[in-house]
Amino acid sequence: MSKTFRLVISCPDKVGIVAAVSQYLHERNSSIVEANHHTDAEQKWFFMRHVVDAESMSVDIDTFRKEFAVIAEQYEMDWYINSSDERPKVMLMATKESHCLNDILHRWHTQELQCDIVGVIANHEDLRSMVEWYKIPYHCINVPKDDKMPAFQAIESAIDESGADTIVLARYMQIFPEYLCNKYRYRVINIHHSFLPSFVGAKPYHQAAVRGVKLIGATCHYVTADLDAGPIIEQDVIRVRHSHSATDMVRLGKDIEKLVLSRGLRYHLEDRVLVHGNKTVVFAQ
Amino acid sequence: MSKTFRLVISCPDKVGIVAAVSQYLHERNSSIVEANHHTDAEQKWFFMRHVVDAESMSVDIDTFRKEFAVIAEQYEMDWYINSSDERPKVMLMATKESHCLNDILHRWHTQELQCDIVGVIANHEDLRSMVEWYKIPYHCINVPKDDKMPAFQAIESAIDESGADTIVLARYMQIFPEYLCNKYRYRVINIHHSFLPSFVGAKPYHQAAVRGVKLIGATCHYVTADLDAGPIIEQDVIRVRHSHSATDMVRLGKDIEKLVLSRGLRYHLEDRVLVHGNKTVVFAQ
Amino acid sequence: MSKTFRLVISCPDKVGIVAAVSQYLHERNSSIVEANHHTDAEQKWFFMRHVVDAESMSVDIDTFRKEFAVIAEQYEMDWYINSSDERPKVMLMATKESHCLNDILHRWHTQELQCDIVGVIANHEDLRSMVEWYKIPYHCINVPKDDKMPAFQAIESAIDESGADTIVLARYMQIFPEYLCNKYRYRVINIHHSFLPSFVGAKPYHQAAVRGVKLIGATCHYVTADLDAGPIIEQDVIRVRHSHSATDMVRLGKDIEKLVLSRGLRYHLEDRVLVHGNKTVVFAQ
Amino acid sequence: MSKTFRLVISCPDKVGIVAAVSQYLHERNSSIVEANHHTDAEQKWFFMRHVVDAESMSVDIDTFRKEFAVIAEQYEMDWYINSSDERPKVMLMATKESHCLNDILHRWHTQELQCDIVGVIANHEDLRSMVEWYKIPYHCINVPKDDKMPAFQAIESAIDESGADTIVLARYMQIFPEYLCNKYRYRVINIHHSFLPSFVGAKPYHQAAVRGVKLIGATCHYVTADLDAGPIIEQDVIRVRHSHSATDMVRLGKDIEKLVLSRGLRYHLEDRVLVHGNKTVVFAQ
Repeated sequence: MSKTFRLVISCPDKVGIVAAVSQYLHERNSSIVEANHHTDAEQKWFFMRHVVDAESMSVDIDTFRKEFAVIAEQYEMDWYINSSDERPKVMLMATKESHCLNDILHRWHTQELQCDIVGVIANHEDLRSMVEWYKIPYHCINVPKDDKMPAFQAIESAIDESGADTIVLARYMQIFPEYLCNKYRYRVINIHHSFLPSFVGAKPYHQAAVRGVKLIGATCHYVTADLDAGPIIEQDVIRVRHSHSATDMVRLGKDIEKLVLSRGLRYHLEDRVLVHGNKTVVFAQ
Repeated sequence: MSKTFRLVISCPDKVGIVAAVSQYLHERNSSIVEANHHTDAEQKWFFMRHVVDAESMSVDIDTFRKEFAVIAEQYEMDWYINSSDERPKVMLMATKESHCLNDILHRWHTQELQCDIVGVIANHEDLRSMVEWYKIPYHCINVPKDDKMPAFQAIESAIDESGADTIVLARYMQIFPEYLCNKYRYRVINIHHSFLPSFVGAKPYHQAAVRGVKLIGATCHYVTADLDAGPIIEQDVIRVRHSHSATDMVRLGKDIEKLVLSRGLRYHLEDRVLVHGNKTVVFAQ
Repeated sequence: MSKTFRLVISCPDKVGIVAAVSQYLHERNSSIVEANHHTDAEQKWFFMRHVVDAESMSVDIDTFRKEFAVIAEQYEMDWYINSSDERPKVMLMATKESHCLNDILHRWHTQELQCDIVGVIANHEDLRSMVEWYKIPYHCINVPKDDKMPAFQAIESAIDESGADTIVLARYMQIFPEYLCNKYRYRVINIHHSFLPSFVGAKPYHQAAVRGVKLIGATCHYVTADLDAGPIIEQDVIRVRHSHSATDMVRLGKDIEKLVLSRGLRYHLEDRVLVHGNKTVVFAQ
Repeated sequence: MSKTFRLVISCPDKVGIVAAVSQYLHERNSSIVEANHHTDAEQKWFFMRHVVDAESMSVDIDTFRKEFAVIAEQYEMDWYINSSDERPKVMLMATKESHCLNDILHRWHTQELQCDIVGVIANHEDLRSMVEWYKIPYHCINVPKDDKMPAFQAIESAIDESGADTIVLARYMQIFPEYLCNKYRYRVINIHHSFLPSFVGAKPYHQAAVRGVKLIGATCHYVTADLDAGPIIEQDVIRVRHSHSATDMVRLGKDIEKLVLSRGLRYHLEDRVLVHGNKTVVFAQ
C-alpha cells in the first residue's frame, strides 16, 4: 500500500466548494484515490473526504496545510489532512471480557487495522497474559466503587503519557466521567450491546429478553457525557428466537459486538467518520 | 396441499406431556407433518405445535376435541385444534397508504396466504378502487377527531358482522380503543414502522433520523391497550446511510413493513404464534 | 422534488478530470445535490455521476450538452446528461407469475419509481386484468415452441412503437434472442431466481434444494446473448432451512426477486448503473 | 450447565416413531430440554434430536444404549446418544492465515465451544507461538509438492494418536486425500471462502471479483472426496461494492469465514447436524 493523504472537510454548503478543492488538488497534481461528498440538505452542511496518492502530489504535507488554509478560511471549513504513515495511536480499555479485545488485537497483529496499539488499560488482571503475548503494555487500574476519581486520574495520565489519540472502550464496564468525555471529545469509542436507542443503560440483553424482541444488536458510538446517547458510528443486529436463552443471547451478541466495534474503529482510524451535531456522516467504502 | 389439523398446546412444564400427546396421536394413527416443542426454562412453561395429516387420523376433529380434552385437563393445557380447511377470516384496516394493503391482497389473491379476506375498513376513500378490483367489500368509516366512539362502534359492527377472527392494521393511522383491544385480544395485528421498543409512538422515521441510527426497522405485534407495547411477533431492519433523506427512509421502510407484516400474519394464520405473558413463541419453519 | 440533471461519465483515469468537470459545473453556477466518483485502479478507468439542481444552472440542457462535449472529447469520455423531467419509458414483460409485475406496477402507481410504464408484453392472457386496472396497454404475444421468430419480431415492434428505452423481464419465461439482446444492449433488465453464478439456467430453486444450500437468492442483471451471464446490477439472499420445502423456497424466493428487481430497476432508472466490461459500478445511495 | 444427553436419530419415516421414543423417554422419567423433529417428505426420511436432562433419567447411559437398541432396531434407526460430559476431541489444521484459528481458539478458551482442542497441525511454523500460548500441541508437518503421501500419513498418525473425533480445516491450504476423506467421513469440516456452489476451487474472491457479484460468502461443509461438494452445514454472505478492491474482499470475507466456520463447528459439536445423502438437516436453535 503506497502512502496516501486523507483530506477531510466539513463546512456550510455553498456553490463552488468542490471546484475550489478539486482545482487546488489538480494544481498540485494530486491523483485522487477515493472521493466522497455529502450535502445535508436540511442543515445546509457539506462534507467531503479525499484520499490522494502522496507520491503524486507536488507539495509536501506541511506546504499543503499552509496553502490549503487559505481556501479553508474562505469557505469556513472544519478540516484536516492526515498522512497514512502517521499511524493513529490507540489505547484500549477493558474489564474481564475478552472477545472485543482479542478481536481488535488480532486484527491489529495481522495488519488489518492501520494503527499502533499503545496500551491496554483494565480494571482487572484477567486479560494481562493475553495482552502481553502481543508485547503491549498492560495497565491494571482498579476503580473502587466508593472513590473513582483517583482511578480516572491515573487512567488519564496513562492515556496522555501513551500519546494515544483514540481510546476504545472494548467492553469496559465503567462509566467514563464527564470531564474525560469532554477532554477526549469524539476520540472515545464505545461498544454498547444493544441496538440503541433501545435498551439504554445496564443489562441490555436482559431487557431485550424481557421485551421479547426478535433481533438483538450492538452500537458503536462516540462517548459523550450523555450516557449511551453519543453520535452513532455503526450498528448491526442478529436474529434471536424463543429457543435462545439469555446465555445464548450473550453469546450471539458478542459476535455482533466484535464486528460492529471493529468496523466502527476502522472507519474512525481511516478518517471516514465526520460528526455534525449528534449525527455522523460515515464515508464507508 | 392435503388437509391437515394443527394442534397447539401451552401448559405448565411437566414430565410426560410429549409422551401423552404423541401416544394419543399414535393411537389415532396420526401421521405427523411438522412438530415443534419449546420449554421456557425460566417460566417453567411448555409450548407445542403439531401439524398432522387429517387423512391419516382415525377420528374426525370433533371426536378428537372430545377425546383430547381429557389429556388437556390432566396437564392444565391451553389448547386448540384447527383444520386447514377452516380458513381464518381476516378483516384488513388501512388509511391512505397502500403498500401493506396491496402486498397482503396480492399474496392472498395468489393463494400464498391461506385465509379469507372478508373486508377492508378504511377511514378514507382512497383505496376503494384497489380493494374492489379484488371483489372485497370496502367499508369507509370516517373517524372524526372530536368524536371517535361512534366510528369505532361502526368498526366493531363491521368486524362482527363479517365474522372476522383476525384484524390486521395495515398502516391504519388511528389508535385502537382499549375496549376493542381487550375484546379482540391477540387477534389484532399491527405493523409499527420502527424497531420497537425504539421510537414508540408517532413519526418513528423522523425520530430515527434525528437520533442518527444506522438501521431502521419494522415490528409486527399484537395490539394491546398499552400503545406499541404488545407481544412482538416479528421484526426486521434495513441499513440506512447519511445519504438517505427522510423520504428515502420512508421508502426503504415500506419494504420492511410489508415483509414483516406479511411474515407475522402468516405465522398467525398458521397458528405458529403462542403468546405467554407479553412474549411470543413463534414456531417459524 | 425539484428538477435535476444527472451527468454520468466514464473514461480512462487521468489527473484533472474532477477538476475540469467541477470547474465547468461551478462556472455554470451548478448546485451539486449528489456526487459520486470511482476509480477502478486495476483497469485504470474512472466513473463519475453528478446530480445537479436544474434551477441553479445558468445554462439549459442543450447548451450544456454542446459546451460539455469539448471537455468530454479531451478526456475521451463516455457520457450523457439526463433531466429528471424526461422520464424513462419502460416496457414490462411477464408470463403468468404476477409477483414482480404487481410489485413494479404498485411502486410506479405510488410514484416511487420515476418512469412511465408504456406497456406490458406477456405470452399469456393471465395478467391482463391486473395490468388494465392500471390503465396500461397489455400486449399478449404468444411464443410458440416451434417458431419463435415471428413472436419476437412482434415483440420488437411493440417495444419500438412504444418508444420504450428500458425493457424489464419481470419473470418472463422465454429466452431473449441474441439479436434483441444486442439491439437493446444494457437496456434489458432480467431477474434471475438464483444467486448467480450458482444455478444458471432453468429451475434454480430445484437445483438449490438438491445441493442443500442454506441461502437462496436472486440476481438482477442486464441481459446479454450469454445466458444468465450479463453484468450484475443487484443481488440478495434469504436463509432457508431443511424445514423449507421446494414450495416454501419458491415463496421465499419471490420476496427476494421482487426486492432485487425493484432495487436494480431503480438504480437503472436513476442512471446509477455504469457498465464497464462485464461488471457494473452502481452508485447506490 | 447441568449434564445432558443428546439422542440423535434418523430413519425411514413411519407412524409411531415419536410415540415410541417419547414413551420410552417418559418411562425413564426423562426431562426433555430440547426436541426437534423433521420429516423429509420427498425422501420419506425422519430425523429427530432430543436433549434430556441427565439427572432426571432413571437409567445410566449404558443401560439406555442397551434398552434403546430394541426400539432402534424396530424402526431401522441410525442413532447415537452422547453425554455432554464426554467432550468431543478436535484437531485443528491450518497453514499461515490465523483468523479462523484465532477465532476458534478464543471461543474454546472462553468456554463458548464445548470441546477439547487436542492439537493443531500446520504445514508451516508461522502459527506456533499463538497456538502454544493456549498450551496446545503444535504439529508442523510440511507437505512437499512433489511427494505428499508421507506428509498425509504423518497427519493421519497425529490425528489418530490424539484421539480426535473431529478435524477442522481452518483455512488449511492443502487438498485432503481421498483415503482420509473416506476414513474420517463426516468428521472433517472445511471452510470454503465462497458461497458454494459458486466459485468452486482456488481463488474464489478473485473469481467473484471477475464476475462482479454483489455479495461474497463462505461455506462450511463436510469434506468428501469430491472437491468442495460435500454436505453443506452453514453458509453466509456479506455485501460488497465496486469500491471494494480484491484486498477488501479478502478482509470482509475473513469475517464471514470465521463466523460461518464457528457456527458450523458448534452445530457439529452439539450433534445438531444430521447428514442424509449429500444434504444436511441442521437443528439449529
